[in-house]
Amino acid sequence: MKEEQFLNTISKVLDDSSLLGDDCAYLSDFNIYATCDNLIEDVHFDLKTTDAISLGYKSVAVNLSDLASNLSTPKYILLGLSLPNYLSEEFFKDFYTGVNNICNKYNVKVAGGDITSSSKICISVCALGVKNKIIASRKNKINAGDFVCTTGEFGSSILGFKILNDANLKNDYKNDELDYFIKKHIKPEPRIYEMKQILNNIDSETIAMMDTSDGLGDALYKLAIINNVCLDVDFDKIPFHCSLKKNKNYKDYILWGGEDYELLFIINKNDYYKLDKNLFHKIGVVKENINKHTVVINYQNNSCDIINDKIYKRKVFNHFEDK
Amino acid sequence: MKEEQFLNTISKVLDDSSLLGDDCAYLSDFNIYATCDNLIEDVHFDLKTTDAISLGYKSVAVNLSDLASNLSTPKYILLGLSLPNYLSEEFFKDFYTGVNNICNKYNVKVAGGDITSSSKICISVCALGVKNKIIASRKNKINAGDFVCTTGEFGSSILGFKILNDANLKNDYKNDELDYFIKKHIKPEPRIYEMKQILNNIDSETIAMMDTSDGLGDALYKLAIINNVCLDVDFDKIPFHCSLKKNKNYKDYILWGGEDYELLFIINKNDYYKLDKNLFHKIGVVKENINKHTVVINYQNNSCDIINDKIYKRKVFNHFEDK
Repeated sequence: MKEEQFLNTISKVLDDSSLLGDDCAYLSDFNIYATCDNLIEDVHFDLKTTDAISLGYKSVAVNLSDLASNLSTPKYILLGLSLPNYLSEEFFKDFYTGVNNICNKYNVKVAGGDITSSSKICISVCALGVKNKIIASRKNKINAGDFVCTTGEFGSSILGFKILNDANLKNDYKNDELDYFIKKHIKPEPRIYEMKQILNNIDSETIAMMDTSDGLGDALYKLAIINNVCLDVDFDKIPFHCSLKKNKNYKDYILWGGEDYELLFIINKNDYYKLDKNLFHKIGVVKENINKHTVVINYQNNSCDIINDKIYKRKVFNHFEDK
Repeated sequence: MKEEQFLNTISKVLDDSSLLGDDCAYLSDFNIYATCDNLIEDVHFDLKTTDAISLGYKSVAVNLSDLASNLSTPKYILLGLSLPNYLSEEFFKDFYTGVNNICNKYNVKVAGGDITSSSKICISVCALGVKNKIIASRKNKINAGDFVCTTGEFGSSILGFKILNDANLKNDYKNDELDYFIKKHIKPEPRIYEMKQILNNIDSETIAMMDTSDGLGDALYKLAIINNVCLDVDFDKIPFHCSLKKNKNYKDYILWGGEDYELLFIINKNDYYKLDKNLFHKIGVVKENINKHTVVINYQNNSCDIINDKIYKRKVFNHFEDK
C-alpha cells in the first residue's frame, strides 16, 4: 500500500477524519497545534551511520519542523522510545542528551513519554505548539505575482545520506564537505528561528506554507495543486551547496532528495521585502494555472522541466514504495 | 536496564524533567493533560492471539485509561503506526475500525498521525485531555480512615493472556468464560464512564488516584509509598470473576496480573457514600504508616500478606525484566 491509499482507507473508516492529511493538526478545543512522527531503525535511520546524540536531536527536529511549517511555536514534546535490550545505558544517555540539546535550544519541555523494549529501535515523538497570530497552512488565498520563497538550502541531506551509504563517494569531497553534508542528514535543524522572523515581520494574516521534508519538488507540487496555481521556479535561485554539483545527480537531489526540513511558502511582494534576504530566498513566482503545468522549473539555458501529475508520481519519495 | 534506571538517567540528562514520572503530564501552558504509549508487536501483543479490531481498540484504550486516572476527559489522540509491508489492507482497515469504535464511544477525535513501514508493528498513541475541576494525581492529602476504592475487577486480563498462550488451560473453563477472559485481555475498557461519575458526585477538589495497568498490587504499593500511609486491604472485597479461583495462581493474578486498567483511588467516607456502589468498590482503609508495612492484604482466615519494598520489587511487573 502507498501512503495515499492508507489515508484513503483511514478517511473511509473514521467517522471524523477532518483533522487528518496535513503534517500538523489544529486542535480547536485546545487552541494548539499537534503533530507526531514514528522513526524506525533500518527504515528511517541506521545505527551504523548515525550517533545517538544526533538521533535524539533529529527525532525532535522533524516534529518541530512540522510545527514550524504551521507557524506554531513548539512548547512540549512527548517521547515514546522502544529499544532492544542489547543497547547500552550510554546509548540511552546520549539519545536523551540530543533530545535535551534541541529542547533547550528552542525552549521546549519534555512532557512525558514511554519506554519499552523492542527488537528494533522505534522512536515516536508527538510535539505540541502554540497557535500564533498568523495562520500558515498548505491551502491559502494566493494571487498571480506572489513570490515562492524558501529558507536554507536543498540537496545536502540526501548527499549526506548517499555518502554515508557509499564509501566510494567519499573520495569526491574534502573532509569539511563530508562533515557538512553528513551533518545536514543526521542532525537537521528545524526552521524555528526563521518561523519567528516571518511571524514578526509580515503583515498578512495567513500564508501558504509547508516544510520540504519529502523534497522541494514534492512541496512545490503540493502547494501548486492544493491552491490551483502554477509555480514558475527559477532553478538557479534555489539555494544549494556549490560542491553538490560534483555529483551528476545534483538536480535530482535538490528537487527530490527530501529530508531538508526547510520551509517553502508563498508570499506577496510587500511581505517579501520585509524579510531578511540572508534567511529567505525568492525562488519563483505564482502564475495562473492555465496549461495545467502546475510547477515549471526553469534553467539558465532556457530549458525547463515541468512537474505534472505523472512526473510527480514517478519522482516523489514514498515511504511505502513497492519493491 | 530497568524502567527505574531509565527514569533515573533521563532525569540526570534533561535540564527539566519535572513533567516526567507519572503516566500522564499536566501541561500548564495549555491547561491540558497528555500521555503517550508505545505498543510493540511480540512485546505487548502477538498477532496470533489478537485480532486487528481489538488491537486498534486497545491501543487507544490504554492511553484513555491514563487520562482517566488523572480525571482528565479525553479529547484527541495522535496515532503513529509502523507496519510491515506484508500486512494486508484488511488488517489496516480493521485496526482503524477498532480505533474508530473507541473514539466514537468516548467522543475522541483522531487529530493526526504518521504511517511508516517497519519490520514489526509499532503503534504509538498520544492522548490529550481536558483538565476538569477535580484534580487527580498519585500524591494527595490522605487521612487515616479514608477508604481505598476501585472500579471493575482484577485478574481477568492476565488469565485471558494465559489462556491465549497455553492451550491446556482452555479445558478448565466453559466457552463463555474463555470468551470473557480473553476479551478482558485483548480489548480492555478504559474507565471513562466511572471517571465522569466521580467528577459529578464527589465534593473533594483533589483525589489520590492511578490506574492499575501494572497490577493492583503495584498501584496499591505506589499510592501507599508516595503518600506515606499504610493501605489495609481486605482481599475478599477485591472484585474478581468467580471462575478465577479455578486457577491455583488466582491470588497472584488478582494482585499482580496487570493490564486491568481499573481505577484505584483513595477517598474520604463522605465522598464514598455519594458514589454508586455498583460501580465502585471499597477494598480497604488508610492507616498511619507506623510499622513501614505500606500495604497489608488481609485474608478471611485471618492470615495476611505484607507488601514491602522487597516483596514489591520481586513481584512487580517489569517491562524490562532481565532474562
